[in-house]
Amino acid sequence: MVQKYGGTSVGSVDRIHNVAARAVAAQAAGNEVVLIVSAMAGETNRLLDLARRVTELPDRRELDVIAATGEQVSSALVAMAIQSQGGKARSFLGHQLKIRTDSAFTSARILAIDAEALRQSLKHGSIAVVAGFQGVDDAGNITTLGRGGSDTSAVAVAAAIRADVCEIYTDVDGVYTADPNVCPGARKIERISYEEMLELAALGAKVLQRRSVEVAMKYGVPIHVRSSFSDAPGTWVVGEEAGLESVVVTGVTSDKSEARVMLVAVEDRPGVVATIFGALAAENISVDMIIQNASSDATGRTDVTFTAAKSELDRVDKVVQAVAEQVGAREVRFERDIAKVSIVGLGMRSHAGVAARMFDILFREGINIQAIATSEIKVSCIVAAKYAELAVRALHDGFGLDRPTTTG
Amino acid sequence: MVQKYGGTSVGSVDRIHNVAARAVAAQAAGNEVVLIVSAMAGETNRLLDLARRVTELPDRRELDVIAATGEQVSSALVAMAIQSQGGKARSFLGHQLKIRTDSAFTSARILAIDAEALRQSLKHGSIAVVAGFQGVDDAGNITTLGRGGSDTSAVAVAAAIRADVCEIYTDVDGVYTADPNVCPGARKIERISYEEMLELAALGAKVLQRRSVEVAMKYGVPIHVRSSFSDAPGTWVVGEEAGLESVVVTGVTSDKSEARVMLVAVEDRPGVVATIFGALAAENISVDMIIQNASSDATGRTDVTFTAAKSELDRVDKVVQAVAEQVGAREVRFERDIAKVSIVGLGMRSHAGVAARMFDILFREGINIQAIATSEIKVSCIVAAKYAELAVRALHDGFGLDRPTTTG
Repeated sequence: MVQKYGGTSVGSVDRIHNVAARAVAAQAAGNEVVLIVSAMAGETNRLLDLARRVTELPDRRELDVIAATGEQVSSALVAMAIQSQGGKARSFLGHQLKIRTDSAFTSARILAIDAEALRQSLKHGSIAVVAGFQGVDDAGNITTLGRGGSDTSAVAVAAAIRADVCEIYTDVDGVYTADPNVCPGARKIERISYEEMLELAALGAKVLQRRSVEVAMKYGVPIHVRSSFSDAPGTWVVGEEAGLESVVVTGVTSDKSEARVMLVAVEDRPGVVATIFGALAAENISVDMIIQNASSDATGRTDVTFTAAKSELDRVDKVVQAVAEQVGAREVRFERDIAKVSIVGLGMRSHAGVAARMFDILFREGINIQAIATSEIKVSCIVAAKYAELAVRALHDGFGLDRPTTTG
Repeated sequence: MVQKYGGTSVGSVDRIHNVAARAVAAQAAGNEVVLIVSAMAGETNRLLDLARRVTELPDRRELDVIAATGEQVSSALVAMAIQSQGGKARSFLGHQLKIRTDSAFTSARILAIDAEALRQSLKHGSIAVVAGFQGVDDAGNITTLGRGGSDTSAVAVAAAIRADVCEIYTDVDGVYTADPNVCPGARKIERISYEEMLELAALGAKVLQRRSVEVAMKYGVPIHVRSSFSDAPGTWVVGEEAGLESVVVTGVTSDKSEARVMLVAVEDRPGVVATIFGALAAENISVDMIIQNASSDATGRTDVTFTAAKSELDRVDKVVQAVAEQVGAREVRFERDIAKVSIVGLGMRSHAGVAARMFDILFREGINIQAIATSEIKVSCIVAAKYAELAVRALHDGFGLDRPTTTG
């Protein structure tokens, strides 16, 4: 089995020993055990701050060299803790497991894992402690997988060794229908499909990195999200076939990490949006929602709006200012005070009118909708940031998520 | 050229920028520049303390995984600083340069360096910033080279790329005839031979790791030890042929890092010392002086004494207690309050009576000599720790080291 422990779970010497004890117990129960560990809580931020004190725009290759040390340290500390409890263990770094990624520094994607070294280690009865979040590209450069990347490391390793389960240990005890801090009626979800989890992860539920769910879905790895501070079962993330009850809406999320960017009155001709988003893609900047209407007047001009992470806004600004003239934009506007509120559920596929019901619930609360994006199993609305919590509670109530019978 | 910067030289963001500026200037002056950097001052101790809080006897393989992160971080920070000053730079870790070592974790020896990646990088006009202190063994495990190991990294890299000079930047401005804190009359040495420097390094002069001098001597790499806070020339460490004036004694050192271990009344038969020191060697414990007399009485028993680093004493104790019974030792005694005081000089080869003069100088100060060890170009005496400074000053005066004309 694969067990992944996040930063708070390895955040102190005591907690590291707690993780070691869990791993030793899991092995004693007859499992082959592979651990994936994050950096100790706060360590990644400390390292990135150090880099930013040296230069405001640090090179991303070098940033990854620094950031990867957080997991390097915690993997060795956990291995030592297991040894001190009488177990056998050894640490593995990204380059030692040949966790091969592309070269998109700070947000690389795993391409392949050579599981041979792991298999050898397991065969010798040793617990393997893998540094999460990191890999190497073809040239041997160190890469990191972006925030939450250790989740993806864990699922990818689980897929590579064909583990029965990938347990994700965290400081909450599972995935909830909404953030319990915002919505007192929120309930823990027992089982959820990869597709729904994918949308929830993409929409601001912090419990799993989105990419990790994609990999789990692709390779059919069951994920069990649970607390490292208790033995209670958490939330299983599984394939649709695995006996899920169909509900219309499974969860409600909100996300304030994005900002809205509007290029005002760009020329409405072929190639314009390709220019804008091609330039952003060339800088490896992820764009989320994109909204563009055909021009409705005689000016032949239209507005192009998109959302992107606030943390990327400095880089977005540079790119957009550079292309603004090229596409004849009259102005570029940034709006930071927004939230994206979303509902997710497999049941939307077969139930018509779910989006309309969402708009109605928000309307009744007097919340103006600035933009809308939909997929097969989710609806997202951009609203003013100040309404985020109100919107989540209203939607959670409106779709009856507090009623325990509706989710399996 | 190769420039190596120690922990104090990269100990803060300002100092990192100072190092970057020096490197950029050296490149602008027409040099191909390779930097070797240590961990930021205090960082290695912080990391090792963290490990010791997890377990009192941490596994050495895992300890190296942790310790290596200090240099990993500083190499990337220095590369970033150079970039922010308009230069081209990239960091290289031990496994990226294939700095191949044996598997003696925490005190590994460099076996080979693949300089191809460095040559490529230099050819592109980039300053290479190499993480010192670290390498990889044949199995891809991370190893470290022991305290001061970055000096050895630097000299080995200089040898691999056939650099004209290996500059070792430190917080002192060169090698002195004695520790200026102990001996006010101590002078900076302008040129010193590899052989003498080797003895000084082995005898407690902290300015260069001993192994680095061995490598420099083997490959004929000129070392220039100098201050990172000034432009004044420091001390050149060179081959004997390079115009050194012959003086009887070049330097005086003292070293309180060792303890004396005595196995009392062991059986005086073949194989006994092999058993004792074989067991220590099997644990990779370095022993310094070894003193054994033939048994002088009818008991057929003798005392075996040796010195070893105080920091290794816990491990020494385990090994020695295990073999003590085997060799029939009546008792094992440890003495921590000792110092090794030494004189070093090429001139001893051709001048008789240097050792006798040393004993006489110590005798006149009322200092008892507990043990003696000599080599072709050094004499060391073990004395009570409290006499260490007095002994150094007396020897420095007695051999006329304060007179500037005697050293070239």
